Amino acid sequence: MYIYSENIYTPKGFQDGYLKIENGIIEGIYSEVDSDAEVLDYSQNIILPGFIDIHLHGWATGSFTHGGDVESLRNMSKDLVKSGVTSYLATTGTDSLDFIKFQLSEAKKAMDSWEPSLGAEIIGIHLEGPFINKEYKGMQKEEHVLNPSIDILKSFMEIAGKDNIRLLTMAPELPGSEEFIKFANKENIQISVGHTAAEFEDIERLKDLGLGGFTHTYSGMRGFHHRRLGVVGAAMYFEDMYCEFAKQTGQTVKPEAFAIMYRLKGPDKIILTTDCVGLAHVSHEFYHYIRKQTFIPDGDYVKIINDDGTEELIDKKDYEKVKDLELSYIDSVKNVVKTVKASISDVVKMTAENPAKYIGLYDRKGSIEEGKDGDIIVVDDDWNLVDVFVKGVKQDIN
Amino acid sequence: MYIYSENIYTPKGFQDGYLKIENGIIEGIYSEVDSDAEVLDYSQNIILPGFIDIHLHGWATGSFTHGGDVESLRNMSKDLVKSGVTSYLATTGTDSLDFIKFQLSEAKKAMDSWEPSLGAEIIGIHLEGPFINKEYKGMQKEEHVLNPSIDILKSFMEIAGKDNIRLLTMAPELPGSEEFIKFANKENIQISVGHTAAEFEDIERLKDLGLGGFTHTYSGMRGFHHRRLGVVGAAMYFEDMYCEFAKQTGQTVKPEAFAIMYRLKGPDKIILTTDCVGLAHVSHEFYHYIRKQTFIPDGDYVKIINDDGTEELIDKKDYEKVKDLELSYIDSVKNVVKTVKASISDVVKMTAENPAKYIGLYDRKGSIEEGKDGDIIVVDDDWNLVDVFVKGVKQDIN
Repeated sequence: MYIYSENIYTPKGFQDGYLKIENGIIEGIYSEVDSDAEVLDYSQNIILPGFIDIHLHGWATGSFTHGGDVESLRNMSKDLVKSGVTSYLATTGTDSLDFIKFQLSEAKKAMDSWEPSLGAEIIGIHLEGPFINKEYKGMQKEEHVLNPSIDILKSFMEIAGKDNIRLLTMAPELPGSEEFIKFANKENIQISVGHTAAEFEDIERLKDLGLGGFTHTYSGMRGFHHRRLGVVGAAMYFEDMYCEFAKQTGQTVKPEAFAIMYRLKGPDKIILTTDCVGLAHVSHEFYHYIRKQTFIPDGDYVKIINDDGTEELIDKKDYEKVKDLELSYIDSVKNVVKTVKASISDVVKMTAENPAKYIGLYDRKGSIEEGKDGDIIVVDDDWNLVDVFVKGVKQDIN
Repeated sequence: MYIYSENIYTPKGFQDGYLKIENGIIEGIYSEVDSDAEVLDYSQNIILPGFIDIHLHGWATGSFTHGGDVESLRNMSKDLVKSGVTSYLATTGTDSLDFIKFQLSEAKKAMDSWEPSLGAEIIGIHLEGPFINKEYKGMQKEEHVLNPSIDILKSFMEIAGKDNIRLLTMAPELPGSEEFIKFANKENIQISVGHTAAEFEDIERLKDLGLGGFTHTYSGMRGFHHRRLGVVGAAMYFEDMYCEFAKQTGQTVKPEAFAIMYRLKGPDKIILTTDCVGLAHVSHEFYHYIRKQTFIPDGDYVKIINDDGTEELIDKKDYEKVKDLELSYIDSVKNVVKTVKASISDVVKMTAENPAKYIGLYDRKGSIEEGKDGDIIVVDDDWNLVDVFVKGVKQDIN
């Protein structure tokens, strides 16, 4: 199968030609093809590597955080391609060990039985906690917070399957962190700093043991002061560390605050994620203090009560209804493009190259190159999604 | 008179030649001179424009803040050249209107009677207050804080002499600021934001009326948060505004915090000052909460009591004794060079070009160019001062 465009974005820049994908793998870009070849013509559009979301708990009709089962991941995969995400890390939260273990076991099943026709690929697991600091728990559950434990991590790895835990968010100031970080690093688990009361000096001391970056930068960490720089100061200062940013709604992080970090780090060290949770699928009443809304489960529906007293009832299986509860990956990209005037090359770095490199999967994902997975998105000049391919399989995005 | 060097720094880059200064004015750089010409040979050294300190209340044996008279400025001028400062703004604080008016009248006398043999030139006045916010007063006197008043500013201008007030630090969120800023702008008085509880949005709204930059950036202003960016966020974000930094001791602003702002603004928008006060000359017992020392006047001496109980007695007229009470301009430059690996060109921007441009004196000061004042410093490769010239007059720097 060939995809034709004048604007195929590769690490060498834009190329004009026929992108060949066979058995899910990119074979190359050719200047001409046989007259009887199957060609999809996107002359007017731009061909990019698909978005990789490394921090995602749920989306639209699925919630791994609230359901935690194979079905929740199936629903997420099916809906994620509609916002340009072709692969993602199933992200756990700070929950009971039993529930996390259940999630890991279900994620493994979902990964083992996944195929491209099912939508976005689950490329591993991101453990957001339970080794975090209560003081900066944000929306994580305080009662399940634990100190870092290599034994617990080993038990997680056993259930999840070898190499499936790709990323772990932790508070590195907690007791036992040093040995824990060394162990994770040896096991090729990337560590992000998050939900942390660490000081600048903690990050400085521990970073070279294996702290790669920061989870939802600015949120859930000690803020910046010019005499006590905190984790935000460390994120600003250490040029070799990545800053992950959750969806750019402007609510959690002001656009100007994003722009400041963008100027400091450059697109080479920023990773865009959504940190969406699948809000329609809350399992118990839940108050979202940033959105100022209460979510109440109600059978096949979710009731949303705004702080001003207005309320609405939404069918949680209806994609068209639930997709607007949280900002999608591609809409977040559009906001970033507007905020910092990011070029296509900048966006590809933040959405594909950097996340793939960060979790050690750049040999398979993150760019359009020979031998890599055929995870492709087609967009127009205004970042509207035209088509999506996962391992060469065209997805239903409507 | 000619100054010879292979490294004369000009806006066009380094030049090798004979720098001619006649009647205090730079005439040009020549490749050869008559054999009987008076030549000072600095073959091994670097020739730069002298440092311009636009925020300085006192230094070594003089304190404009504590004495406020012509003699205090004469002592400052004499001692400042020893740290490479060839011109400065005599800076008032938030004091009683009577005392400020006394200072302005004395500053005018000192300016009118100044000559190059007396040391650093007083090139105008910086009013730090009294139009500041009590909430961020720092070491300013709360009882003398006032709302912005055009009438008071007019009375100051009348005493100080036309065009002598060059810079004013204020809190732009105070009532009446808008008209006040417009008036100052029309009168060519540069406005810096400082000692202020303003929000990011206040700076955004008012900057184009005439807010040029920030006084002792980070200190005395609302800090940064990613949902409430404050004045620090505005300093980080608005690329056209200058950031003044007081002496870089590392005590008030951590080197990494300076480095973060340096990366954001670049050397083109940073101005180095000292904000020294002449600590030996306190007129009443004074506790310095950053240094954790109490200063007590005692006739010709000052007694310094450290928080740990140790104390020392210092002759306040003895330059060698008092010069180490505060970090000098050139020692602050050395710290900046170390912190951000600043080049010579970067340092010249931050110490001479930018301050001269900021206060509207770049036609006379701030660079080595034909027609400008012969304010010259000679340094070695390690930023040690070798010689200093003010309007072509060689100074006693030992």
